[in-house]
Amino acid sequence: MRNLKLILAYDGTDFAGWQIQPEAPTIQGILASAIGRLTGEKVLPQGSGRTDAGVHAARQVATFVTKSAIPTENFLKALNAILPTTIRVLEVAEAPPEFHARKSARAKTYCYRIFRGGICPPFVARYVWHYPYPLDEEAMQKAANEIVGEHDFTSLAASDPERGKPETASNVRCVYSSQWERVGDEFQYRVRGNGFLHHMVRNLVGTFILVGKGTLESGGVGGILQARDRSAAGATAAASGLHLMDVEY
Amino acid sequence: MRNLKLILAYDGTDFAGWQIQPEAPTIQGILASAIGRLTGEKVLPQGSGRTDAGVHAARQVATFVTKSAIPTENFLKALNAILPTTIRVLEVAEAPPEFHARKSARAKTYCYRIFRGGICPPFVARYVWHYPYPLDEEAMQKAANEIVGEHDFTSLAASDPERGKPETASNVRCVYSSQWERVGDEFQYRVRGNGFLHHMVRNLVGTFILVGKGTLESGGVGGILQARDRSAAGATAAASGLHLMDVEY
Repeated sequence: MRNLKLILAYDGTDFAGWQIQPEAPTIQGILASAIGRLTGEKVLPQGSGRTDAGVHAARQVATFVTKSAIPTENFLKALNAILPTTIRVLEVAEAPPEFHARKSARAKTYCYRIFRGGICPPFVARYVWHYPYPLDEEAMQKAANEIVGEHDFTSLAASDPERGKPETASNVRCVYSSQWERVGDEFQYRVRGNGFLHHMVRNLVGTFILVGKGTLESGGVGGILQARDRSAAGATAAASGLHLMDVEY
Repeated sequence: MRNLKLILAYDGTDFAGWQIQPEAPTIQGILASAIGRLTGEKVLPQGSGRTDAGVHAARQVATFVTKSAIPTENFLKALNAILPTTIRVLEVAEAPPEFHARKSARAKTYCYRIFRGGICPPFVARYVWHYPYPLDEEAMQKAANEIVGEHDFTSLAASDPERGKPETASNVRCVYSSQWERVGDEFQYRVRGNGFLHHMVRNLVGTFILVGKGTLESGGVGGILQARDRSAAGATAAASGLHLMDVEY
């Protein structure tokens, strides 16, 4: 059996997220059926993590095992010929048998793009959250600094009954870097950490927005973390602005 | 009565083109209903020209007459609040009564984007034609030079029975500039002229592709023009690569 590693890019706009669903188009489902067409096998590729409906990926990683002898380069070309143009396979490589896209991941980087101009160009609208209202961007950077390091991020995680996470599972994660940057008309948040809870990046952005609006002081983020209560933090920012940028192993 | 001029940008991917249709979402139809919601009037905004299904516009111009007293700036904000994010109103301005988006137009500029890399990023796929095969780009530029000036473009025009164009209408147009340019992984064609026939830019691109592949010599474009026969020219290039860039008055 071969263990194959895929690097994927996708525009999440038209998909109901990564995870396979019986009635909706998902990245995992479409990828599984494309692989099935090539190999004749029923496989379910495992991603480094689930992305939600509307969330994009510049470099998602997935693995699957196969008996197929198709060379990696042919796999790449054939998959791209079958998949919709909004899902691309960037690389196919042989991986050691123990390598697993999710379990082996050591760090991830996300970018969240906010469009700050008055009129958001239609060619950009799918990839940002349009927020043209006043924001204290300096205060938002200060707040972003507060989450660097190891913290219990329960306040920033969606409560996820359907994911069936055991009560004992830890919500402690380590954030290596957390920075806002002005890029033209956009204010972009880039965060790198050893793992992220469900909705965590979008909830962080929603919380930093509270700081930007002056509803919350930048130092208040520490108190939100300590509360370990989702209701202490800001609203979940729109899915369209979120991009999975990289997964490290 | 006021005559209002709109500058519009749109991502044509999800629309059945500019022209209103009873059963399909079109730019003109959606814009007409948005204006109707604001003014209570039944108006049909007139565009500088029809764009086909899937064709984009960076600066399309439209005009409509209204009795409404809504200030132009409020019109802009209110329309953008109603319209989908893939259609944006960039400007609203008062125009003299005789100004008409189509009849007053003196020149138009289109850009056609070809993505030449092996794997087209999903965030670019909606806005280009992906053509990763070998092309003699220098020969294509030579061929593009051939069409500058006043010519009968019958060979490059779609035969359009449903548009009901009278047999006597002229297919002579003047092309002011016609140039290919390398922009990173893209090969982009930019053409400016006093008017364009239906499918003319896409048929030009399809013809230049024949030159790029070596099927047609760059000097052969003159002969195609002289043939005054659609079947002499190349196939119609994909709609997704075409962008209306500017209309001059």
